[in-house]
Amino acid sequence: MEKFFYARSVAVVGVSNAQGNLGRAMVYNLLEFRYDGCIYLVGAKAGSFLGHKIYPSIRDLPEPVELAAILVPAAVVPDIVQQCGEAGIKRIVVESAGFGELGEERRGLEKKILELLERYDMRMIGPNCIGVINRDTGLAVPFMPFKAEAPPGRTSILSQSGGVGATMINSLAAENLGFAKFASIGNKLNVNEADLVEYLIQDDQTRSIFVYLEGIADGRRLMRIAAQSPKAIVAHKSNIGKSGSVIARSHSASLASDDRVVDAAFKQCGILRAIEQSEAVQMLKAFMLPPMQGKRMAIISRSGGHAVMAADAADQFGFELPPFPKELLEKVQASSRAKVIQFHNPMDLGDLFDLGLYKALAEQTLARDDIDAVLFIHNYQGIFDAGESRRLLEGLGEIIRGATKPLVVCVFTTKPELDHIRKLVKFPIFTDPREAIRALAWNRGWHAKRPLPLASEPPAGIDRGRAASNLQGFSAGQLPPQKVAAVLAAYGIPLIDWDYAETGQEAIQSAARLGYPLVLKTAQPEVIHKSDAGGVHVNIDAEAALRSAYEQLSALGPRVLLQKMAAPGLEWFVGGRQDHQFGPLVIVGLGGIYVELLAESAMRIAPIGMAEAESLLAELRGAKLLEGLRGQPRLDRQALLELTVRVSWLLHDFPTIQELDLNPVRVYPSGCMALDWRMLMAGGAG
Amino acid sequence: MEKFFYARSVAVVGVSNAQGNLGRAMVYNLLEFRYDGCIYLVGAKAGSFLGHKIYPSIRDLPEPVELAAILVPAAVVPDIVQQCGEAGIKRIVVESAGFGELGEERRGLEKKILELLERYDMRMIGPNCIGVINRDTGLAVPFMPFKAEAPPGRTSILSQSGGVGATMINSLAAENLGFAKFASIGNKLNVNEADLVEYLIQDDQTRSIFVYLEGIADGRRLMRIAAQSPKAIVAHKSNIGKSGSVIARSHSASLASDDRVVDAAFKQCGILRAIEQSEAVQMLKAFMLPPMQGKRMAIISRSGGHAVMAADAADQFGFELPPFPKELLEKVQASSRAKVIQFHNPMDLGDLFDLGLYKALAEQTLARDDIDAVLFIHNYQGIFDAGESRRLLEGLGEIIRGATKPLVVCVFTTKPELDHIRKLVKFPIFTDPREAIRALAWNRGWHAKRPLPLASEPPAGIDRGRAASNLQGFSAGQLPPQKVAAVLAAYGIPLIDWDYAETGQEAIQSAARLGYPLVLKTAQPEVIHKSDAGGVHVNIDAEAALRSAYEQLSALGPRVLLQKMAAPGLEWFVGGRQDHQFGPLVIVGLGGIYVELLAESAMRIAPIGMAEAESLLAELRGAKLLEGLRGQPRLDRQALLELTVRVSWLLHDFPTIQELDLNPVRVYPSGCMALDWRMLMAGGAG
Repeated sequence: MEKFFYARSVAVVGVSNAQGNLGRAMVYNLLEFRYDGCIYLVGAKAGSFLGHKIYPSIRDLPEPVELAAILVPAAVVPDIVQQCGEAGIKRIVVESAGFGELGEERRGLEKKILELLERYDMRMIGPNCIGVINRDTGLAVPFMPFKAEAPPGRTSILSQSGGVGATMINSLAAENLGFAKFASIGNKLNVNEADLVEYLIQDDQTRSIFVYLEGIADGRRLMRIAAQSPKAIVAHKSNIGKSGSVIARSHSASLASDDRVVDAAFKQCGILRAIEQSEAVQMLKAFMLPPMQGKRMAIISRSGGHAVMAADAADQFGFELPPFPKELLEKVQASSRAKVIQFHNPMDLGDLFDLGLYKALAEQTLARDDIDAVLFIHNYQGIFDAGESRRLLEGLGEIIRGATKPLVVCVFTTKPELDHIRKLVKFPIFTDPREAIRALAWNRGWHAKRPLPLASEPPAGIDRGRAASNLQGFSAGQLPPQKVAAVLAAYGIPLIDWDYAETGQEAIQSAARLGYPLVLKTAQPEVIHKSDAGGVHVNIDAEAALRSAYEQLSALGPRVLLQKMAAPGLEWFVGGRQDHQFGPLVIVGLGGIYVELLAESAMRIAPIGMAEAESLLAELRGAKLLEGLRGQPRLDRQALLELTVRVSWLLHDFPTIQELDLNPVRVYPSGCMALDWRMLMAGGAG
Repeated sequence: MEKFFYARSVAVVGVSNAQGNLGRAMVYNLLEFRYDGCIYLVGAKAGSFLGHKIYPSIRDLPEPVELAAILVPAAVVPDIVQQCGEAGIKRIVVESAGFGELGEERRGLEKKILELLERYDMRMIGPNCIGVINRDTGLAVPFMPFKAEAPPGRTSILSQSGGVGATMINSLAAENLGFAKFASIGNKLNVNEADLVEYLIQDDQTRSIFVYLEGIADGRRLMRIAAQSPKAIVAHKSNIGKSGSVIARSHSASLASDDRVVDAAFKQCGILRAIEQSEAVQMLKAFMLPPMQGKRMAIISRSGGHAVMAADAADQFGFELPPFPKELLEKVQASSRAKVIQFHNPMDLGDLFDLGLYKALAEQTLARDDIDAVLFIHNYQGIFDAGESRRLLEGLGEIIRGATKPLVVCVFTTKPELDHIRKLVKFPIFTDPREAIRALAWNRGWHAKRPLPLASEPPAGIDRGRAASNLQGFSAGQLPPQKVAAVLAAYGIPLIDWDYAETGQEAIQSAARLGYPLVLKTAQPEVIHKSDAGGVHVNIDAEAALRSAYEQLSALGPRVLLQKMAAPGLEWFVGGRQDHQFGPLVIVGLGGIYVELLAESAMRIAPIGMAEAESLLAELRGAKLLEGLRGQPRLDRQALLELTVRVSWLLHDFPTIQELDLNPVRVYPSGCMALDWRMLMAGGAG
């Protein structure tokens, strides 16, 4: 990936002097960002632009450039790619639109390009994108013109949409915050977000990474990379709802995703998810601060009202506000003018007008061992008093440069003054105490809780071969329940005692073995909603009742499952499915009336270990019922966790299991077991 | 209140030429905002400032001014107030700090001022505030200097904190949005938020109202005013948590409030609550748009990625996106350049570069009968293409001026360009599709759902006199349970059959009347946690058991309550208390294990009618259990609602009932009844 950003020569393909030619903006950007390599222009009409000759074709270039940035009509792209390949150009950015995002009929073009990339051993970003910018070398090829407004920063930006990527550059620049590297990745035909995130994690210039996505190309790889990232990754993933999916297909050829899976996967691998652009900017600002290592915060405020808000927010986000030491308070009190202020934490500087003292206060407080971060809130109008306030803020900047803990600065002033100081200082400025404290909470949370990677060691007692042999030979559709049970048993998943029969006589023999009372269920795999179809008889307490039940069930087919009646217990469901973006996932929730009452479930990308299963359960309000509320017995949480882990491994080990439902799983004071099971195969051998 | 804003002459009291004198900023503001009345300055040192003579005292003023704005040390304030009174000045703004916010010892000063106000029939804003601004006349007396940056607007601002009020002015001005009237109300000694909200509702210049509060002076009056307001009221109420309350007392003499009561009260009377400043600004922008009368929205976007975000947000906030009519789509398609875009709603204008067409598209779409609002998203960098984009935005402004439905404009561009167009156009510009759609949701929600006023007609069958006679004569503390039962019965609140006894013999007679099985409880009012104290015996099925139970209970005292054993049912609790800000309130929640599982309750300011009780119940997830989930019988929702309404009236009619708990209330398929009751009296006769 490095060559995309550090190419020492670049050809812009598709430049002409015709009105509305967008290739010219690509050239403009290279000049605006002071590209330090060689620029070549290519355009069928030849000529020159901004001092550069326009070569009629790639074949005419005097040297094989390291990168070609291409904006020509979609139909011409394969030909241009081939010319690049023949010319030995190994990296290309295709900005043209008109590919898979328009529907299936354009897939042929994409296929042709992929073949060429393979033939010539090339890598490509795009198509349908605005390409890359590297502030380190000035390489900048978007066909959308940018100004190099803010100085280079340490945030890198990846965006599936060029427009949204540009918005992020502009939003940061609006606060005079810069970026390090930028890539708009469009249809992600050959290079996707995981490739670039992996590169940026080891890029020296990058300290945190923003990604805007409408679809996810290789979710598991992205998770693996993110889980080990020492740099914070902030993702804005859109294309959530049904209305959204309509346009997303046409925009970036993404399929709508199950948004809850994205949420679960991001949380699991430590990606911070922003729900809107302004939140993403706030999150990125949070990671421009040093790590906050504890909960203890000091708030010093020039404005009483904002101090109240800050105290509210500190409470809400779980911070502590230790009292200021007495000697500090006395010093401050001595400088107070009308003595109309009382000092606490938050400290309201109120009528303390000696701004020189503020810097010392901030510095001494930040240095204290019992403080993990300082929030300094300054409030001034900048009309008569701009000078001393600017000096104060520059002073705070000096402290920040040497600090290893966050000193967060929140400023209230007029817009012209805010614009001025944002150019004056190099640290992020917040404009709301709650935003500042939320940023500290993100910062602290991310550093405190590193994600667990996907599990690598399956639990003991899994007989994978036996499961495989039971899955073998079944094509798409419902697996017969006796086979499902055998597969589950091979994975050590506890089931109610059961047996299978195909005649009345077999059923009676099984009953004798299992003992009454019994449940008799149809085992015809084509009957999916057994209860609705009259396929379940419960409380069978003797042979006569069994005979009669079997006779009635025969209407659905001869195959039946017999099960012991289970003791009452708390009902859960545990299941999973294969997700098109993230692969196998496991889902857990409460059953019975709690399904409707709590309407909650939690999921994880599989496989998971016991610790991750515990964190999954901890997300569910209903898990409190396992503790034995109001005199009920405490139930076997551990058994439910183990079952969940085993289910996650089963879905992971056999991707042909499209869906699995254990519902209900009854949990007892000791142990748990599944009372019903259903498995949908995706086709192909298991 | 009007005289505070429309005084034709103003005296600024406390001006001197000494360095650091803050009175000078008050004079500066009057000049900056071009006050159209007469200005007089008063200061003990006399002299002159900015061309105005400084009179040594109020007595020396040549005419009795209509308003005095006072900033002198707290101790001097009473004397100045008296001088104002003697001079016939009826309106004063006291900006000085150093009163009740510093603690009880300063209350004496406040009392003295209140006496003077009454004696001279004056009204006062403050103390501890920055006073008022009226853009209509230029009256502007804050001691904090402002610039008249944005043109006057239609939002008026009330703030308990001067700093926060200034922040709101600055935040609006940052988007070139102005305000109409401003008042910082500080300690609210004589004029509070309700007084000013009431005034602003009938002020022609004001279209919506922002209020920042740290405490609430007269909650019920504020609710009554807000419930009937045709103008949206956005409130930012801080001072929520425990850390917050420490500073708030010293800042504005507010007591920390129960934040959930504030939430409930605001919702009940239609006040929109913002949790942070940026959200408040978004809410105010929502009400700069015409009312959105339905759910149907059209989204037209210059950027595909932002269109995806907009579609997500439209889904999330419950809007519908009807398809565009075929003839419109064909017209657009004909103008598409590379034909690389498909058109839906959201419509991604993609490579449609004819900006002239955009305005027509927006106008035609807004005019359609099946559309309630249009969101137009424009995206441009403004580097080569500023001209036509600015023309487009001015064109959209023309449509907006004549529109009765919202045309919401979201723009993505660089900051300098955004600053430029914000000065160019007169409508609010949004910078995130989700923010824009959330604004529409607030707008639509507020217009669609007008609040119910507090109930005015009590339900039938209330015998207020009988309740009063049972409450009579009891001072503070727990009311004896047999008295509580009598009060509840007088309000038609259904109770389990009960009787009261003071001897074993009386108990046996009661039991004969009630019939076994029975519950026997201590009726000693001093025993609050009856079960914990061994004060409850259940399942008493015969006289012998009753004797034995009575004997054991006698250890706590002779008084007992006998109750029939109640049939099992779903357990709720219904209760209430007197709130120091909003008066009587009623609280409802599920009991039993659901207390811990759902951890939910809902409340309303009392009294309420059946419709409000229903909306209260609808907030509770657990109310689903009344519907009879999973084969359980449907329970008597109506009975629970009626009981709730009656409880709300009881708390309303008798403010000396400090707390009331009916817990549990068992709800059955037909009817409901309280099984236990507790009432705490606040002292004074009932």
